[in-house]
Amino acid sequence: MTTYLDANKQRFLDELLELLRIPSVSADSNFKGDVRRAAEFVKEKLAAAGLDNASLYETPGHPVVYAEKLVDASRPTVLVYGHYDVQPADPYELWNSPPFEPTIRNERIYARGACDDKGQFYMHIKAIEAMIATDGLPCNVKVMIEGEEEVGSDHLGTFVAEHRDMLKADVILISDTSIISNETPSLETGLRGLSYVEVEVTGPNRDLHSGVYGGGVANPVNVLCEMIASLHDESGRITIPGFYDDVADLSDAERAELAKAPFVLEDYKQDLGINDVAGEMGYSTNERTSIRPTLDVNGIWGGYTGEGAKTVLPSKASAKISMRLVPNQTPDEITELFTKHFTAIAPASVSVKVTPHHGGLPYVTPVDSVEFEAASKAFEDAWGKKPIPTRGGGSIPIVALFERELGIKSILMGFGLDSDALHSPNESYGLFNFYKGIETIPYFYKNYAELKR
Amino acid sequence: MTTYLDANKQRFLDELLELLRIPSVSADSNFKGDVRRAAEFVKEKLAAAGLDNASLYETPGHPVVYAEKLVDASRPTVLVYGHYDVQPADPYELWNSPPFEPTIRNERIYARGACDDKGQFYMHIKAIEAMIATDGLPCNVKVMIEGEEEVGSDHLGTFVAEHRDMLKADVILISDTSIISNETPSLETGLRGLSYVEVEVTGPNRDLHSGVYGGGVANPVNVLCEMIASLHDESGRITIPGFYDDVADLSDAERAELAKAPFVLEDYKQDLGINDVAGEMGYSTNERTSIRPTLDVNGIWGGYTGEGAKTVLPSKASAKISMRLVPNQTPDEITELFTKHFTAIAPASVSVKVTPHHGGLPYVTPVDSVEFEAASKAFEDAWGKKPIPTRGGGSIPIVALFERELGIKSILMGFGLDSDALHSPNESYGLFNFYKGIETIPYFYKNYAELKR
Repeated sequence: MTTYLDANKQRFLDELLELLRIPSVSADSNFKGDVRRAAEFVKEKLAAAGLDNASLYETPGHPVVYAEKLVDASRPTVLVYGHYDVQPADPYELWNSPPFEPTIRNERIYARGACDDKGQFYMHIKAIEAMIATDGLPCNVKVMIEGEEEVGSDHLGTFVAEHRDMLKADVILISDTSIISNETPSLETGLRGLSYVEVEVTGPNRDLHSGVYGGGVANPVNVLCEMIASLHDESGRITIPGFYDDVADLSDAERAELAKAPFVLEDYKQDLGINDVAGEMGYSTNERTSIRPTLDVNGIWGGYTGEGAKTVLPSKASAKISMRLVPNQTPDEITELFTKHFTAIAPASVSVKVTPHHGGLPYVTPVDSVEFEAASKAFEDAWGKKPIPTRGGGSIPIVALFERELGIKSILMGFGLDSDALHSPNESYGLFNFYKGIETIPYFYKNYAELKR
Repeated sequence: MTTYLDANKQRFLDELLELLRIPSVSADSNFKGDVRRAAEFVKEKLAAAGLDNASLYETPGHPVVYAEKLVDASRPTVLVYGHYDVQPADPYELWNSPPFEPTIRNERIYARGACDDKGQFYMHIKAIEAMIATDGLPCNVKVMIEGEEEVGSDHLGTFVAEHRDMLKADVILISDTSIISNETPSLETGLRGLSYVEVEVTGPNRDLHSGVYGGGVANPVNVLCEMIASLHDESGRITIPGFYDDVADLSDAERAELAKAPFVLEDYKQDLGINDVAGEMGYSTNERTSIRPTLDVNGIWGGYTGEGAKTVLPSKASAKISMRLVPNQTPDEITELFTKHFTAIAPASVSVKVTPHHGGLPYVTPVDSVEFEAASKAFEDAWGKKPIPTRGGGSIPIVALFERELGIKSILMGFGLDSDALHSPNESYGLFNFYKGIETIPYFYKNYAELKR
């Protein structure tokens, strides 16, 4: 195995770089053709790795790529999930090298999708290739790579429901999360959910001269700012009535366990270039970003944003707002609570439109399962260290859907770092992480087959 | 005179349309060449009208056009001021006809600058042409048309200071304001000043994943919204310390005089398509838009504003904010108060940058002067009605500068309507107003010459 991995290092990397050159931005219809090219590329590589039935499954949106290798019905079956679509790359001008021309600097691959999730799911294809090419697969394996994760996996739910038998498995293995550091491997035991909405505040029926009308007519930008500001109170809590009703509070023991994860506030602040952190009173930074729900404006626009000055009182102002959810909040309920509240607080001088974008359920993995044990031991085998259980702040909406539709749990065996700048300019993925991941994954199959025997 | 005006109606209009086809947007450097073309056009038309010494005066920005006709040293001298530059035309998609392809619909000229100020200053050139071509000029006349009014007239101050003798006059005549309606002519007796700033709030040194960091790191968009919201209190008053210290409060008598201007709240709301007006408690809509200072966001931007959803916690958020000032506030003081306050209220989790754009002093015209009487009587002569004195909400910063530098007052004899959509898509100017203005202006010269004799 090790020999095979060493012998093919360069090829594995070259293939990933080829995949990263495809701008498969699922949110932007201008890239539709590229998204499909990425799907075709993944299909070919799955077949080349030795998997059977590699094919594209059409959806009303972007296609799902699927392949499988069933070696022995008596052995457990692993379903690998990943996504070949990426976040939009703008603002392009902030990239030190073009987002879709992968560049290697200081042992890191710089490109949109380098870590999220092309670099991570591709490790699985290469690990499977290596197992097939050497000692053989200890488990049956099914691979499903979708193209709509960054836009809410709108059509994967239907796909999964319609292919329950094909996707039947004992566990789902996903690499789309982070470890604490290359010195301190970790395994995520939970993820936050998501409710994403777009709001539009309309004042006058046209842009007005701010001199002629200013002071007498509600300015939708000022009003939007007031409405957004009112969504948090002084203690950093979200003011939407009922927002916290279903939030599962952790026990002191659970909080103490999470607090074991090494965290140096000064390093955190220095990395982000901020003088101070902020957030909900009574919780640590790690808790604020994992076990507590949030409300963030992801984008805002209105009025004149060009060069120079324009004295306009705009007709409209808009914002994209997302809320991270924790167990047991549900995106449907939260989106409804938000919409009701945001509409209710709008003054009579404006009208408000709320458009739900997408959502995802929060998720928690049981740490006492053989699946978690197999993953934990895989890190020990490859890294010589037991991984620390952590709770992630991000969302992989599909994980909760898998549990509902397929009745199986997911193992979040991610190899990224928080400093990989996911969703940001200059996203990168460490060569160490890429190769170490390919080395770690086969141990999971080996451990899992033994533990299930 | 009347015969001459009738005989040349169509040519007057054709010339204006030609001027309106030049996209002289002073705020956007992409239009620099067009701004100059507009200046050249105005110079030629001033010469063609029979004025002497028509020429361009270079400035570090856009040139000033000047011409004069000195008929008799014993007669009073009128200095006409206007501006050939226009506001940016975007959003272009909201125009029913292209902003720089003037179109005439229902007796109105639709084009950027149709009223502000090309349509209005051009009336003066044609009125002067008519006087010269018929009974001759009752007064000496000097015409100064600048190209930077929409960006704060940055260089006109120096120009005026350096050409005091050339610009020496008894009164300044400006058509860059509105009348109440075509049935109710009015004369503006005051204007609001302006302080225009741009603010930038910076949080983390890069865009972050809102899942990984959301809840633990201050979001600059949320923070900017909170800061902007805090600039007004519940009663609609601006919270900047010292902001109202110099505001000249009107006497009940003065407020009663202003209240005579016809105003129908229902029509106002219907015209703007709003369910309710808004503003500072204790003041009428007309007062809120004329004798009271304001703070409006003219533009805001930050984070992801493209198609679809991006779960980003942005690094920066920005806004363009303008404050309308009333006597005796000064832009320098107010800009300083704003900057100090806005910086002071920024939480430790972000950094703030405030960049002053430009400003202008508020202005009041004495209604008991012969200049005002000459203008008031000119309306009576041409419209058969005494104009109502009003206070304008807009700003012509230069008016206060003229008083300081040249020691003379300005008469604001505007012929536009608030519904002309200045600074908005589908700006227009009525043919009636254009021709009626050309007819009214010569009466001012006649009245003024007689009153000064």
